[in-house]
Order: sequence, then C-alpha cells, then structure tokens
Amino acid sequence: MSDIGTRARAAAVALARAGSGDRDHALNRAAELIEERAEEILVANGRDMVAAESRGLSGAMLDRLRLDEDRVRAMAAGIRDIVALPDPVGQVMAEWTRPNGLLIQRVRVPLGVIGIIYESRPNVTADAGALCLKSGNAVILRGGSESFHSSHAIHACLVAALHDSGLPGDAIQMVPTTDREAVGHLLGRMTDTVDVVVPRGGRNLIERVQRDARVPVIGHLEGICHVYVDGAADLEMAKQIVLNSKLRRTGICGAAETLLVDRACVDTHLDPLVKALIDAGCEVRGDVTVCATDARVVETTEEDWYTEYLDAVISVRVVDGVEGAVEHIARYGSGHTESIVTEDEDAAGTFLRDVDSAIVLHNASTQFADGGEFGMGAEIGISTGRIHARGPVGAEQLTSFKYRVRGSGQTRPG
Amino acid sequence: MSDIGTRARAAAVALARAGSGDRDHALNRAAELIEERAEEILVANGRDMVAAESRGLSGAMLDRLRLDEDRVRAMAAGIRDIVALPDPVGQVMAEWTRPNGLLIQRVRVPLGVIGIIYESRPNVTADAGALCLKSGNAVILRGGSESFHSSHAIHACLVAALHDSGLPGDAIQMVPTTDREAVGHLLGRMTDTVDVVVPRGGRNLIERVQRDARVPVIGHLEGICHVYVDGAADLEMAKQIVLNSKLRRTGICGAAETLLVDRACVDTHLDPLVKALIDAGCEVRGDVTVCATDARVVETTEEDWYTEYLDAVISVRVVDGVEGAVEHIARYGSGHTESIVTEDEDAAGTFLRDVDSAIVLHNASTQFADGGEFGMGAEIGISTGRIHARGPVGAEQLTSFKYRVRGSGQTRPG
Repeated sequence: MSDIGTRARAAAVALARAGSGDRDHALNRAAELIEERAEEILVANGRDMVAAESRGLSGAMLDRLRLDEDRVRAMAAGIRDIVALPDPVGQVMAEWTRPNGLLIQRVRVPLGVIGIIYESRPNVTADAGALCLKSGNAVILRGGSESFHSSHAIHACLVAALHDSGLPGDAIQMVPTTDREAVGHLLGRMTDTVDVVVPRGGRNLIERVQRDARVPVIGHLEGICHVYVDGAADLEMAKQIVLNSKLRRTGICGAAETLLVDRACVDTHLDPLVKALIDAGCEVRGDVTVCATDARVVETTEEDWYTEYLDAVISVRVVDGVEGAVEHIARYGSGHTESIVTEDEDAAGTFLRDVDSAIVLHNASTQFADGGEFGMGAEIGISTGRIHARGPVGAEQLTSFKYRVRGSGQTRPG
Repeated sequence: MSDIGTRARAAAVALARAGSGDRDHALNRAAELIEERAEEILVANGRDMVAAESRGLSGAMLDRLRLDEDRVRAMAAGIRDIVALPDPVGQVMAEWTRPNGLLIQRVRVPLGVIGIIYESRPNVTADAGALCLKSGNAVILRGGSESFHSSHAIHACLVAALHDSGLPGDAIQMVPTTDREAVGHLLGRMTDTVDVVVPRGGRNLIERVQRDARVPVIGHLEGICHVYVDGAADLEMAKQIVLNSKLRRTGICGAAETLLVDRACVDTHLDPLVKALIDAGCEVRGDVTVCATDARVVETTEEDWYTEYLDAVISVRVVDGVEGAVEHIARYGSGHTESIVTEDEDAAGTFLRDVDSAIVLHNASTQFADGGEFGMGAEIGISTGRIHARGPVGAEQLTSFKYRVRGSGQTRPG
C-alpha cells in the first residue's frame, strides 16, 4: 500500500505539469477502450455476478453490481461528458494588485492524490477515475470485493488510455486486494501520500471512514431531506414538489424522507397531500394529526424522523410555521437538502437563511440535488461536510489553489 | 469539555442568524474593554511572567508571553482592524440560472464551531477570538498554560462585549483548564460539535494535533522557504530580495531558510550574495562550491536542507537551473512560500507553475507571505494544507458556503 502511495504521488507531480490536452486525450481514449472491450468487461462482470448470487446478495445489491451493454455504453458516454467540462486546473479564481505593485493571483491546482473508497457499483471505477484525471489528480481506487473483476477490467482500460496518451499509468491505481486492512492502511497510514479520501457508499462505510481516517475526508453520511409546505403554499405546486421529491427516485440521497406541513394550512393542505402520496403508492407515516386524516397512515415513532428510508415511505409531521420547520430540520436533518414551498417571500427568506444545509431550495424539488442538475457536470457525490467542499463535488471541488505573486523587486519594509 | 462543545454549537446557531452589525458592535466593544481593563490584563500577565521565570523559560518564550501597555493597545487596534474588514457572511460567491429557470446561488456561511489551540502568546486570544466572531463562528480557545491568567483576563473582555451586544457569551469560550487531556478531548471526541481545529504554535504542537485529530485541521507544519536566484537574475535585485527574505524578521514562518543559486551565475552572483549575507550578520552554511567562495562559510549537512532555522542562519546550495531549484524544493520544502529572482519570463513561468507551494513569488521577498500584505486583513496563520484553505487564513477562509436555489415549482423530470 505504501508503494501505491509513493507511485501515486509521483504520478500526481507529472499530471500537475501535463496539459489539459493530454488529460482529455486519455479520457477520450478510455471511453473508446471501454467500448472496444465491452465483451471482456461483461465477462468479468459475469464472474462477479455468479459469486454474488452464490453468496446470496439481495436483489438491490445485484442490480447495482450488474453491467449490460447499455450500462457499459453509458459509462463511456459519462467519460465523454467529463471531457467536455472546462478544465479547472490553471483557472485564475481571483487576481488583484497591491499598492506596492505586487500582482496576486489565486490559481486552481489539483488537490494531489485522492483516495476513493466505494462499494458494489463497478461504474464508479470509470466515473471517479475520469473525474480525478480531469481535475489533474492521481487517484487510488478501492472498490468493493463484490465488483472486483468488473472494476479491474474497467481499470485496465483507464491505464491503457493513460499509457496511450503519454501519461503515467500510476495516475489511476486500483488497490489489488479486497482485504479490509488495505482500507485501514489507506485511511490511517498514508497521510504523506494521500491528500483526501472520498468514500462512496452506505452508512457503514462512511462511518468507518470518518472514524478511522487520519487523512481529510470529503463525504456525506446520509440524505434525510425535508420538504416544508408553508401555510402560504400553492397547494397544486406543493403536491407536485412533494410527489417529485419523494417518488421520482426513492433510492437517491436527494429524495425527500420527511414532509413538514405548517399548522396554518392543516385544514386545507394536509389531507390532499397525504392522499396524493398514498394514491401514488407511497407509505405514509405521520404524527397524531396526520393519522387523523386517513386511516391508512401509520403512526410515527421518534426513530422515523431520523430515518433515511430510501424507499416509497415518507414521514409527515405538522409544525408551527417556518420556525417550527427550521427547528425540526436542525434536530433531525442530515444537512443535505431541504425545500420550502410557499408564496410568502419572507417565509422563504427565513427558511433559506436559517436552514443550515448544503442545499436549500424554494419552490423546487429536492431531487435537483445533483451536480449535473446544478450545471456542474459529473459529480463524485454530495458533501454534507462544511470543510472544502459542500454540496455537489465535481471536478472543480477536487482542486486546491495556490497564490502566484509577480513583482519587480519588492521587499517588505519594517 | 462536551458541555463546552454543546454550548458552542448553540451559540454558533445564534451567531449565524445575527447580523454583521451585532458582531461588529461586539468587536468594537471588546476593543474598548481591553483598553479600559489594561491594568487588570497587565496584572494577570505579571502573574504569568513570575510563574514562567520561576520555571526557567527561555528569553524568547518570555518575550512572547510578555504584555505591556503598547502591546495591549496593539491588541485593541488589531480588533478594530478586523471590524473594518468586509463581512464575509452572506456574500454571494457565484450565481447562475439554469435552463429550467432555477436560480442557483453559492452563498458564504460561517464554518460553525472552530477550535483554536495555541501556545504562549496571549494576544492570540484576542486576535483569534475576534477573527472567528467576525466570520460568524463560535470558537473554543485553548491557550498554553504559560499564558493562562493573561488569556483569561483578555477572554473576560470578549465575553463581556458579547453580552453587551446581545450575543451569547458562549460564542467565545476558553477551556478552563490547562491539562493536556482537554486538548485530546477537543481533538478526538468532539467531532459532533467542532467543525475545524486550527493549531497555532511550534512543531510539537502541530504534529500532535495532526496525529490525534479526528476533526478536520487547518494548519501548517513549518515554513522552510526558498529563494532561487536564477542565472538571468539582476544581481542588485537578487541581493535586496535575499537579504529581506532572510533577515527582515528571522522568526516568522515566511522567512527564507535556504538560498538556491543557479550554476549558470555562480561566477558572477554567488560571491556577492554570500558576502552581503555575512556582512549583514547572517551565518552562511553552504555546499562545497559555496564554501569555496568565503572561508567563513560552514559546510552544510543533509540535515540543514530540512531545517527551519528561524534565526540569522541560511543554507546556500548551487543548483542546475530552474529545474534543479524545483527539484530541491520538492524534496526539502514544506510547501509554504518560495521566490524566484530572474529577468527571464520563461524561467519564472516554469517556477511559478512547477513549485507546489501555497505561495510562489517572482521578483519579490518571501516575507510578503502574510494575510495583511495580501490585502486580506488579519490572518490566523498560513495553511500549507491543500484542503479548504491554502496560504493566509483570514476571515473569508473561516467560512463555508451553501447553495440557495429559487424556483417557481420546478420538479425534476425522468
């Protein structure tokens, strides 16, 4: 593992000096190779699927692991989308001249070496590898044991593409073992060679990473997202936003898990919202007031407000206005994404200011919590941390910066 | 300690909602109170000085600890300088509208709760407390045992100023004990209540913090800063920059520790540079070539290139052009600040691109490595880390951001 780190560091130096032309060339070539070697990748994936089935993995896990021709093509297309992004490296973020004539520029540079720890989805190998390369970073990939063969077949395409473009193959390395000690080593003992670790996966993985990491971590625990329907909400708009936030896709981190309804509109809005959810096939759990609206509503326990269902289930609570909503979210939320539906600009302003989440929306679905929907291109995840990157983590968020100062012989007085 | 964290978190919520008027009021009031209570602060400092002398602290340590009327006035003036800075909180860093009509804004928000761990300088209590308050953060201060009484007297002024301004006194807390376990608790067990720790002090402190922290850390290890005099350097300019970089103040982290001289100008530049340093009272240590220029030069050992002298001592080495300088700095530097002196724009461009330090300068002194000199106002230190903040860490760098999204009922298709 230490050797992987040393080689990654050397590759990062070479990458930082390479032009964006070489990096984009490698990315295009990787997309080509993934298409050309689709058959090999599918055979490798078949081996992983057989092993996973014999170990009795759940249907959802198997679906995440499974590749087919469409998914392989989508992987290549995803890499081409990343090529099309502007190169963040070398961008002048700000510049100013001091009274003594010094010109100061803040310039984007790669972060250096990024460790990505993920679980069963083999496409993360391509996505994460490509996004790190786009932003000039060397990456150490550590995928889940379930996707070992699939990930290695994809990784081989990336390395061949680097070589074909005159870039070091060590720029995208894959940990060659699935034993758990390798993760411990990566998190705890590579502080000199790894600049940041990004975990992608379930709660257990993220908690382990946050507990054991001696290197900085960018990641999110979970998305317990809320929609608050204010007393001044347009009912039809509220219905559309609630249904979309909860049900468009239930398994993504930006899916709503809790609906908060202003006590001021309980008589007019609560029943139609609950009925619309139930009619759309969603299980509704609610507090006493919510239970009174419909016999099919199950009563919530305290645990519900902390739960990320990732399924067609929603918890519903009546709160006292926007302050009540802010308070509920501060207590139970995960700092990911929350939305207010209201026609009252003051209530919206209070909510957008006082809800302390990475993304706060007014009159829009929480499912917009996505780098692509933000116009940032591909993302490696949504950060709920407050340091370095918050919200969608794309190529730009995988950079650092330095100050470039140009003078004409200035010395500092005093 | 856990209770301190819980109270800091509550205060951070209140601060994030307070206007900049209240925060600036508290800062102005703190400056007034420090002036009004100068006598009390000096008496408390006298107790610390007596204890420090009886424990046999070095002269340099005693000087750092000592306060007098001028230094107390300077502390108050420093707080007023911070008041004059623009309020970073609420600044719209970027905004754009998506094709679907969503208006997305990236808005600065406070980081939350900041832990500051420092050593003997009591003025850090005022500086760090004020900078955190300016940026809307609650802070937990943990000063050195030497400055215990001085820091507490200063801290009392800050808390009184918060109360006088209607802000929670818990916004600036001081750990009420100097035992080392409190630091361990702050670093390792307050991950829910502390968002980031900033260590300020010597190498031992920073290393301990980086080793033990489970919370994110912003800090720098040391400043092994280099000046590289290129073959195409103007000799007179080179002399001025080298002398200023090394000797203006030798004890600051932006002071140069190593001079690299291009082999191409050894015959013309080396001897005058070495003589100028020695004439100015600087001890010169050098490689074989440098030793040959003057009998007073001491030969370097490998250890010298890794050493932050923080004194009137410099190591000098001859290197092969800008590539040789880049290589030396990559191997021995600390990623803080490096300067090239040259009239050759190409050499300067290579140096500014390939030297991977927080600050890289062309034809200017390394002693400009300072938030004030950058026009950023007061700073809490210079970060050599690559995550979140790099270079001078001022009020702006003590913020995070969130995304504020305004729609008109948008739901996400597909």
